[in-house]
Formats: sequence, C-alpha cells, structure tokens
Amino acid sequence: MSTTLATTPSGRAFISDNMAGASPQIARAVSDAAAGQVLPYGNDPFTDRARRKLGEIFERDVDVFPVSTGSAANGLSLAALTPPWGSVLSHPDSHINHDECGAPEFFTNGAKLVGVPGPDSKIDPAMLEVAVRRRAGDVHSVQPSAVSLSQATESGSVYTLDEIRRLSAIAKDAGLRVHMDGARFANALDHLGATPAEMTWKVGVDVLSFGATKNGAMTADAIVSFDPALATELAFRAKRAGQLTSKMRFHTAQIDAYLTDGLWLRNARQANAMATRLGDGLKAIPGTGLLATPQSNILFCRLPQQVAEGLLAEGYAFYHDRWEAGIVRFVTAFSHSTDDIDQLLDAVRRHSH
Amino acid sequence: MSTTLATTPSGRAFISDNMAGASPQIARAVSDAAAGQVLPYGNDPFTDRARRKLGEIFERDVDVFPVSTGSAANGLSLAALTPPWGSVLSHPDSHINHDECGAPEFFTNGAKLVGVPGPDSKIDPAMLEVAVRRRAGDVHSVQPSAVSLSQATESGSVYTLDEIRRLSAIAKDAGLRVHMDGARFANALDHLGATPAEMTWKVGVDVLSFGATKNGAMTADAIVSFDPALATELAFRAKRAGQLTSKMRFHTAQIDAYLTDGLWLRNARQANAMATRLGDGLKAIPGTGLLATPQSNILFCRLPQQVAEGLLAEGYAFYHDRWEAGIVRFVTAFSHSTDDIDQLLDAVRRHSH
Amino acid sequence: MSTTLATTPSGRAFISDNMAGASPQIARAVSDAAAGQVLPYGNDPFTDRARRKLGEIFERDVDVFPVSTGSAANGLSLAALTPPWGSVLSHPDSHINHDECGAPEFFTNGAKLVGVPGPDSKIDPAMLEVAVRRRAGDVHSVQPSAVSLSQATESGSVYTLDEIRRLSAIAKDAGLRVHMDGARFANALDHLGATPAEMTWKVGVDVLSFGATKNGAMTADAIVSFDPALATELAFRAKRAGQLTSKMRFHTAQIDAYLTDGLWLRNARQANAMATRLGDGLKAIPGTGLLATPQSNILFCRLPQQVAEGLLAEGYAFYHDRWEAGIVRFVTAFSHSTDDIDQLLDAVRRHSH
Amino acid sequence: MSTTLATTPSGRAFISDNMAGASPQIARAVSDAAAGQVLPYGNDPFTDRARRKLGEIFERDVDVFPVSTGSAANGLSLAALTPPWGSVLSHPDSHINHDECGAPEFFTNGAKLVGVPGPDSKIDPAMLEVAVRRRAGDVHSVQPSAVSLSQATESGSVYTLDEIRRLSAIAKDAGLRVHMDGARFANALDHLGATPAEMTWKVGVDVLSFGATKNGAMTADAIVSFDPALATELAFRAKRAGQLTSKMRFHTAQIDAYLTDGLWLRNARQANAMATRLGDGLKAIPGTGLLATPQSNILFCRLPQQVAEGLLAEGYAFYHDRWEAGIVRFVTAFSHSTDDIDQLLDAVRRHSH
Repeated sequence: MSTTLATTPSGRAFISDNMAGASPQIARAVSDAAAGQVLPYGNDPFTDRARRKLGEIFERDVDVFPVSTGSAANGLSLAALTPPWGSVLSHPDSHINHDECGAPEFFTNGAKLVGVPGPDSKIDPAMLEVAVRRRAGDVHSVQPSAVSLSQATESGSVYTLDEIRRLSAIAKDAGLRVHMDGARFANALDHLGATPAEMTWKVGVDVLSFGATKNGAMTADAIVSFDPALATELAFRAKRAGQLTSKMRFHTAQIDAYLTDGLWLRNARQANAMATRLGDGLKAIPGTGLLATPQSNILFCRLPQQVAEGLLAEGYAFYHDRWEAGIVRFVTAFSHSTDDIDQLLDAVRRHSH
Repeated sequence: MSTTLATTPSGRAFISDNMAGASPQIARAVSDAAAGQVLPYGNDPFTDRARRKLGEIFERDVDVFPVSTGSAANGLSLAALTPPWGSVLSHPDSHINHDECGAPEFFTNGAKLVGVPGPDSKIDPAMLEVAVRRRAGDVHSVQPSAVSLSQATESGSVYTLDEIRRLSAIAKDAGLRVHMDGARFANALDHLGATPAEMTWKVGVDVLSFGATKNGAMTADAIVSFDPALATELAFRAKRAGQLTSKMRFHTAQIDAYLTDGLWLRNARQANAMATRLGDGLKAIPGTGLLATPQSNILFCRLPQQVAEGLLAEGYAFYHDRWEAGIVRFVTAFSHSTDDIDQLLDAVRRHSH
Repeated sequence: MSTTLATTPSGRAFISDNMAGASPQIARAVSDAAAGQVLPYGNDPFTDRARRKLGEIFERDVDVFPVSTGSAANGLSLAALTPPWGSVLSHPDSHINHDECGAPEFFTNGAKLVGVPGPDSKIDPAMLEVAVRRRAGDVHSVQPSAVSLSQATESGSVYTLDEIRRLSAIAKDAGLRVHMDGARFANALDHLGATPAEMTWKVGVDVLSFGATKNGAMTADAIVSFDPALATELAFRAKRAGQLTSKMRFHTAQIDAYLTDGLWLRNARQANAMATRLGDGLKAIPGTGLLATPQSNILFCRLPQQVAEGLLAEGYAFYHDRWEAGIVRFVTAFSHSTDDIDQLLDAVRRHSH
Repeated sequence: MSTTLATTPSGRAFISDNMAGASPQIARAVSDAAAGQVLPYGNDPFTDRARRKLGEIFERDVDVFPVSTGSAANGLSLAALTPPWGSVLSHPDSHINHDECGAPEFFTNGAKLVGVPGPDSKIDPAMLEVAVRRRAGDVHSVQPSAVSLSQATESGSVYTLDEIRRLSAIAKDAGLRVHMDGARFANALDHLGATPAEMTWKVGVDVLSFGATKNGAMTADAIVSFDPALATELAFRAKRAGQLTSKMRFHTAQIDAYLTDGLWLRNARQANAMATRLGDGLKAIPGTGLLATPQSNILFCRLPQQVAEGLLAEGYAFYHDRWEAGIVRFVTAFSHSTDDIDQLLDAVRRHSH
C-alpha cells in the first residue's frame, strides 16, 4: 500500500470507510469539549447528553458503554452474553470471526466462534436452526450461547427486519442471546428506512455494538444494551478491559454531536448514495460487472485488469484480487462527494477503452 | 459527588488531573486531523510523526503502541513482561493493584499482583531484594517476573534516578523485567529535571506506560517499549484487546501536538508549580499541615473540618477523609492558574478563622 | 530433600500427610474396579455409589464433581462463585493463596485473591466485616465475591461451628458466597465431633472442596456443591479444565471405599490421635515447646537444633526453620502408628540430652 | 443409554475403549504402590521409573508431565506451543476441536482452533500448506502457531510415517510447532510397526499427549515433550491447572506397569486384532458393509436396521445413526477377547436373516 496515498485528500481512497476523517461538527464538538473541568469516567454533561440521545433514538432506556474500538464493543458485548464454555454463532465472514485477531476469545475468556454460513454474508436461518441446538446439554461440547449478526454485513448486504426477527426468534427459542455488530449500523438503517428501535430490540437484539467511527466520528463506538440485567457486568468488564476512559467527555462529545440534528443519518445516507451512484454508473460501462446492487456503502464488482491498474496508477486505492481474481471492492464514506464518484466513473470509462 | 460541579469551569476542581480538559494545541491538532483520507490502523502521517517524536525524546528507537487508557497501557505492558504464572511486584498503593478492577489480571491471563511496601508509596529496595527471589523456581508458587514502578507515584512522590537504577538492578539481577507506569511521567520528569532517556531505559526500564491524558491530552496514552523483542507480541496483544484504533490519527495527533514545542513539559511544569504554590501558601496558614513537600502535582495536607466544609460549600472539589480523617488531597492540573491557587488559598485562610 | 527417604516405609516421614500411601480398603476397591465394562464419564455404578454416600453423609442432595487434585477442586469451586472481576477473601496462609501457583487466578480467569488475616491461620471476623464491603460497587475495584475458609487450616487449627457460622453470616450479609477448602475435612470433623452437615451447609457453606487424598485415598478429591444452581456451570467448567475423567470409576471407587464403614473417620481419628500423642509426649520433654495444642494432624513445636539434626540424621523427615528458626512442623497421617510416634518421641528424648 | 449396561461384564460394550477397565498388571501395580511413605509431587521412585521407561522407549531424554486426562494433556501441550493470539490447526474431527468443550481455548487463554480438512479424518497436506501461512504477519488475524495431529485419528485411521513427516515439514517450514494427540498412540504404533521414536520426534513431533488410559491404564495419561525449552513452562502450567498430583505415585505406577514387559504394546495389538477380526467377519456377512479396513481399534460399517436393533436388544452397546443413518461404529479394547468378537459376529449373522 503506497504511503504517498497516506496524505491524499483527494477522495480517491475506497479501501475502507475508516480512511475517512471526521465530520466537521464532530471535530468542533471535541474541540469545544476541551475547556473546563468536569467529573471523570463519564459523570459529565457530555456523557449525560450522549446517553440521553441514545435513549431517545432507541425510544427506551438503554445502558451505554462508550468504547474506543468496534473490536472492544464486540468483545465486551459477547463476554456478557456467553460463558467461557459457550459458542458464538456468526457468519464465517463476520468481523469478529475473521478480523479481530481473536479479540472475542480474549474478552470471553475462551468461548468458541462457530461459523454459520449463508449467501451474501448473511446467516442462513435453516443452518441456524441446526446450529443453535448442536450438542446442547452435551458436556463434551461448547454450548451455543449467542448469535452475532453484522448489520450491515461485512460485504455490505443488509438483513431485512423480517430476517433479523426470524434469526432472533430461532436464537431465543433455543435460549441464546442476540448481539448485533453495528459497525455500519446507520448505513443499514438508511437502507431499510427503519427506526433504530425497529432494527434492534423490537426484533430481538439484546446488545448492540453501536458504530460511529466509520460514519464520521473519530474514535467513539459504544455498547448499547437493551437488557438492564447486563449493566453491572458490562460496567466491570469495560473497566477491567481498559475501556473506561477517564476523560470520557472526549468520546461522548463525539456521540453527542453525531446524534445531533440527524448528522449520523445524513452521513450514512451520503455514503450509501455514493455507493448507489457508483453502482449505477458502473452498470452503464461495458466490461464491468456489479456483483450485487449495493445495499449500504460497500460495492463489489468485476473490473478488467487494465482498468484496475489504471485506477491504481492514478492514486485510487481499493482492495482487488483479494476475494477472487478480477474482483474489486469499493467502500464509500460520508466524506465522498458526487464529484469524487463521477471522477472515479470517468476514470473507469477512460481505462475501459 | 455533586453533579453541579460537573460543569464548573472555575478551576475549583482538585479531585484529579483527569478533571482537566485538553490543551488548546491538542484540541486544534485533533480538529485539524479531521480532514482528508489516510490509511487506517496507524499507517498514517500523524502516527509517523508521533512515533518519530517519541524516538527523538527518548534518543533511540522505540516501539510505540497508542492506547485509549492508562489501564490498557499498563495491562498490555505487563502481559508482555510476565507469564500467567508470574507475579508482578508493585507498591500496594499502585494504580495497577488498587484502581484498575483487576485489569492487569485480565490482560496477563491471571498473573498475581504482589505488594512490596515502602514509605511515600515507593517500593523499598530491601523489601524488593527479598520479593524478587521469593520462592523462585518453586513450582507451587507464582514466579516473580516483573517489577512495576509508578513515576510519579500515586501519592505524588517521585523516585530519584538513583532509586530507579537501584530497583531496576535488583529486578534485573534476579531475572525480572521492569515496567514504569508513567501516568504522570512528565510531572516526574519536571521534578527531577531529567531527560526521558535518563528516567527510563538508561536506568533499566523495559516498557513504559507513557501517559499524556492527565497532562493535557484527551484520550491518548501510549506504550513505549525499549525492548525490540517485545514488539510483535505487543502488537498482537493490543489488536486482540481492542486497542488498535482504526482512525488512529485521532490518537496520535494528540501525541504529536503534545510533544511539539515542549507543550508536554510546559504543562507538567505548570501543574507542578501550582502544587508547589499551594503547598507554600498552606504552610503559611496556621492550623493546616502539609504532609510532605509536593514533588509533582499531588499534595496531601491536614485541614480543620470547618475549612474543608467551607471549601466544599464554595464549590471546591477534592478528596478528603479518604485516607484518614482530616486528610485532604489536592491534585493540580496543567489548566490551573496562579489565580486558581491564590483563590483557593484565600478561601482556606478565610475558613481558618 | 534426600531421595533415599523416598522409599522408606518406616513411618518416619512427617513432612506432609501426602507422603502416606493409601488405605488397603481403597487400594482393594480400585483394584476390584478394574474388571468389567462400564459407561464412561461417571455414568457408572461406582460413581453412583459415591454420589449416594456423599448425599447420605451430608444428609441432603448434593452435586458431586470428582477431580484429581485439591487445587482443581478449589479452582473450579471458586470459578463458580466469583466473576473474573471479583475478589476471593481468604487467610494469607491459605493454600489457594500461597501454594497453588495462581491456580485460582487461572480457573477464575483472573479474579484477585485478597488476604484477610487473623491468628492461628483463621480469618478474623472483624477484619472480614471490613473486607466484604471494601469498595463494593466501585467500578475501579475488584468486587468482594467469595470467602474461602480452610477447614482444618494450613497450620492445623480448626474453626469452631460458631466461627464458621459467624464468618458465613458476615459473607452472606454482604452478598458473598462461601467456599470451604476441606483438604483436611475429616480431620476437622473429628476434632469438632460434628457431622458433615453441621460443618458445611448448615453453617452457610455453598461449595466444599472435599479432600480424600490426604486422608487415605490416592488421587480422589471432589467438589461437593450445596447449591443446585451451580451444577451446570461446574459440570462444564470441570470438563473444560480436563477434570471429567473418562474412566471415572477409578476415582469414585476410592471415594466409595473411603466412605464405607466409616473408614474416612477412622483414618482422620488416627491421624489426629497421633498428633495429640506426639504433642503430649513432647510436652513432657524438657527443652521442647509446643506452639499450640494440635487440633488436627499438624503440630508446630520448638526443637533445639541438636535434636532436629539428630532426627534428620536418623532418617526422620519434616519441615524445620521454614517459618522461623527453631520451629519444626510435624504432620501425622492415618498411616502412622502409635509405635511410629513413640519411636519419634524416644528419638527426641535421646537427642535432648 | 441403558444403565443396566453399566454393570455388564460381558464384553458387549463397543461404544468406546474407555468402557474397558484396566489391565490386571496395572491394577496390581497401583495396589502395590499403596504401602509406604514417599515424597509427593513426583519425587518418588514410581515416577522415576515411569520417566526412565518413557526415555527408553523414545530412545532419548524426554520431559514427562503425568496428567489425569487426555484433555488436560492436549490443553497443556497446546498452551506451551501457541500464544493466545495463535491458531491451532487440526482436523475438524479432532478431539480437541470437537469433544473437549473448549478445553484448548481454556488452557491456551483463547487461542483459536482452525479446522484443516482431509479424507479419513487426516489433515490434507495441500490444505495445510495454505493454512500454515494464512494471514501470517497480519495483525488483524490470529497467527498459525501449531499443528495438532491425532494418531490414531478419531475415526481410527493412522497417519503413515511419511505423512507425519510431510505435515511436520510443512508446519516447521512456516514456523509452526507440532503436537500429537496420542490418545490411541499404541494402537497406531502397532498398526505401523514403528518405534515410538520413529512416530514422534524423528518425524518432527515436538510434544506428545501420550495416552495410556484407553489402552489398559486407569486415569493416567502424560505429556511427553521432546523440546527441553518447554519443560519449565509445562511444569508451571500443569501445577497451575491442578494437574500436579500430590500422591503422583498412583499415576505413575500405572505408567510404569503399562510400559513393563511390553504390556502396552500387547494391549494395543489385542484391541487392533479384535477390530480386524470383526472387520473380516463382517465382510463375509451379506448385507453389512465395511466403510474401511480398520487400521486401529475403530471400525465403521453399515448394518441393516433390524441387525442394529437386534444387537441392542441383546445388550450390545455401540454408537449408531450418529454420523449417518445406518452407520455403526464399533470400538474394540484390549479387554475384548476373540470370543467376544465371535459372539458379536454370530449375533450379526443371526439378525441378518
């Protein structure tokens, strides 16, 4: 990966939405929070506001634990949902299974991640039916304890509300709890046109990793728990894992600003719209092939080799040939503009000739 | 703890230096970092600069792992220095032993913290001599593996360079490694008038928890390792513990600004000077008693009950009657001004009559 | 330690009761269990009988988990009684704190052992009153979660029923659970003349490490749980820790024989009586001093150096100068005879001149 | 499972070789070890002899850690071969992956088990080639650290020496260590006609779980390490996991007798021969189908439903319909006689009409 890329402000980075910076409103909020003395460890007005706003958008009391990364959110959430001898059922593509260097195993003290496959990076309900009861009660086996759904998924697909409801019901019926990895929560929400409540506790989610970082915040994700019985455990686990920030205002000021005046939804809408625009544009270019209509801000397509190479030569950055030869992934962010997309499409067109 | 305090910008908070906000230069740096696309996970120019500057101040190659809290820095550092069947020797007052809810036990997978007492919250060398060899080689006992020194200590005292050198030598001679909890590293440095190199690797420190948060940063501490053999392990442990931030620029921009133009040393000097000023003032007030001349930014004194109550009534915040009846602790921060201190002294005088 | 001792059948070993072999009845039971096919993992008639007999001696339903060592019994029991962020309160001399190389920390995933001192290796109730509430609810501190009592203690003293009742009440009142390390359970029982029920669940014990190995069995200890709510967790934890033996009959045949016709109580009575006989004899020898009247099978005394050396020269084995110069510990076992004791006393007398 | 079966001495149990009792020589050895006083924790002549004999059969110095179960042997071995952020590559059918309730995850503090498939429950070399390098050096992923081979495998197949050599070479070439789960070590040895040295360290095995329990011992397996650098770590890990037995003579007397006069090899030969005899017999019965020629003491076949039901009605015990409808597994043991097998074959013939 070229390090000259590292500084390009050009909007040509499509490797991941974590290459984007932060929304100006969030930068300002953090900066504004720098003055004055407040109580540490979350007993401050910034955190109060963030908590209150999360309660509002979820239309109920929630317990909130700000954390510095999505991996910490996922690991701590799962630790509260499974005993060490439990198994966590997730799609094999899931971030917790594939990209966290065993963080869930660390936080849960050794629970086992068991893959439940399905098309489009989504867990197949029929497979889940079997998996939730596999060797239940058999002391020689780990015990199915939690299901973790990524919404949106790692490949950009989005579970419908009915799909979540069905998977949750399968889990609950067998005594398992439900976690949602919402690293791209707002992107999924925008796609579905659903409310946060409809996409979580109303369809059976117990604990949510509420992602803000990828969608315009800096370093602020949060665990949002819908089960009051987990609050004490989560508080101690978070502290013990080094996730109870002393100057928490600097985390929660981000969340506060993120949730103010719908910034978070606008950011997600922009990122999603840019993926759609990119997809629409690519469809019209002979020789390129969309693998699926993008549902959030991730798009997979086939590009001829000379096109991919041409783009890279111009400073575009994206993953290619990683899943399969000829397959390219573009991830759009809130910070991409229509100009950024149109220039990318122009470049694809140019190199396609 | 009154929540009205939570918003007071008045400089009357002396509970802890984590009640201070952030230096304007750091706030600006974070805000400035918000624009543009860079590579994630520390492969960005902000992190490059922070790493380079840390190398410069320590006058050698160092490995740097930015983390979101001091507890994470301590836990990860210790995990790299002790096996699970090891013991970590620290003063009973140490933050790792007393205030982290077992975080070191979590990160080390169950190593044991063993207290080695001594006056002024500093480990007594004679006690350490015994402790480093206690049941070494005895399979029925945990094995002394690391010594952790807090510099400055939790009560504000500061180890001299000779003291560190001696404790390190005792540790090294018995095959133990040395960790320094530098949550108040700059405050100690200012007190000693030493260089960072002189206070760490030149006197035997292997791994340092480099604290910036308490001294003007927002959420950015870092592990600084002087032993290249630990780098790989620390990298995997940090990732696995949810401490490898995707948008790391927002952590390292803080460190970059912190180390620019001596800001970190100026901040520490200010905090220390305010404690000294407070101490000098209190000495002149009949009925109050300083427990010791402050060496960093923490001051313990005796205050008559009506004085303490009078201060609290005016919105002053501090710990009292926590260690012993009548004992009050004041912690000053970079953000306290001479006016803040003089007003506090006025108030003490007023209530002393 | 001389390895020639290793084979001496002479009854001159007083280092620990784990130097004794096994009762002939237990050896025979194990040997008899060798024939025939039975179901594995405890679904066999030997285990059935052991379970039933434990239920009988405790006068109630109990859950039984045979394990191969007392350390495993203690570690698994504590893991079921404390969360990882909990603390286990025990006497600083306790085996779990002092002699298990951090096994409790391993099994509990990092809970903290906190010492609560008191004379005679027994927890002081007034100290416990304070310890059970120390920083309860404070997220920065481990949370007092379980009290572990050794009965008999590591120095051979025995808690009275009233003492256990009182300590349990203090624990329960603050929401803590109670574990008893009964490595020398039968010895304590014999001393008190109490029933197993009176010494455990009737005075508040939740989970017991039921020791048989030191008192005539080979390799068979067991967790006995009085709280049915813990059964499932203990079963999974035991399996996961490699403590669910496939040919469990060879463990439980030991327990079965141990509990048959009062063998276990006779063994304990013999061991205790030998300590008493030794104590009585020593009292009559000028120059030797008993530190306390032995309550179980452990005796501490002062012996002049030439006496200790003389005994060692004759092949006697015991710990000396380990706690303090001049202090000798003798541990008697079920296998010691009155002749063994009388010969030892003769030898002490001879060397005292 | 019928509990009347539990006591049948009839030789009709084919569920697992752990249903067998113990060899008379081993029962006698344990019984004989009951007399006399010896030093605890393995410093005794029984353990000395067991160690020496293991050194002899492996034709070199080895480090030996007696443990109470195969799960403990596997878990501790793997903990010494992988860091917590490592992955252990084994066949999906492996006992460590499938039947130990996450024990490896517990002992390793959360390493990840990654399945590498292949026919006959044996790891496919081409798949291993890929797996050992998967994301090596990528901090976002667990790191391939150890390969674990079951010899014989869980389905009774046996790796040839060349196969082990090749898999080891692939592992070593990529920097991974090699563990062998030898729960049925002697059965594999008998099949190959190889020496213990040829089947282990000479073909690249670093640490072996040496199984004795299934092949005529009672409760005695052992870790045998060929890498002296692991000895200290294994000793502390074993102690800490409650696997350092105080009266270790009762474990090691079993191993001593097991290795005396070739008992272990005779036992394995008998078990294997009984599987072969059963296989030969079944081949001659129309309507039954052997899935493969048995290589050790496990045999899979197809039986018509009325045959299986007829056998069960006569008190025969075996797993059926567990892998697939109509598939039956028979596991023979050292204790099965030719009469036992011939009677079983008679019964199959009778029910086949």
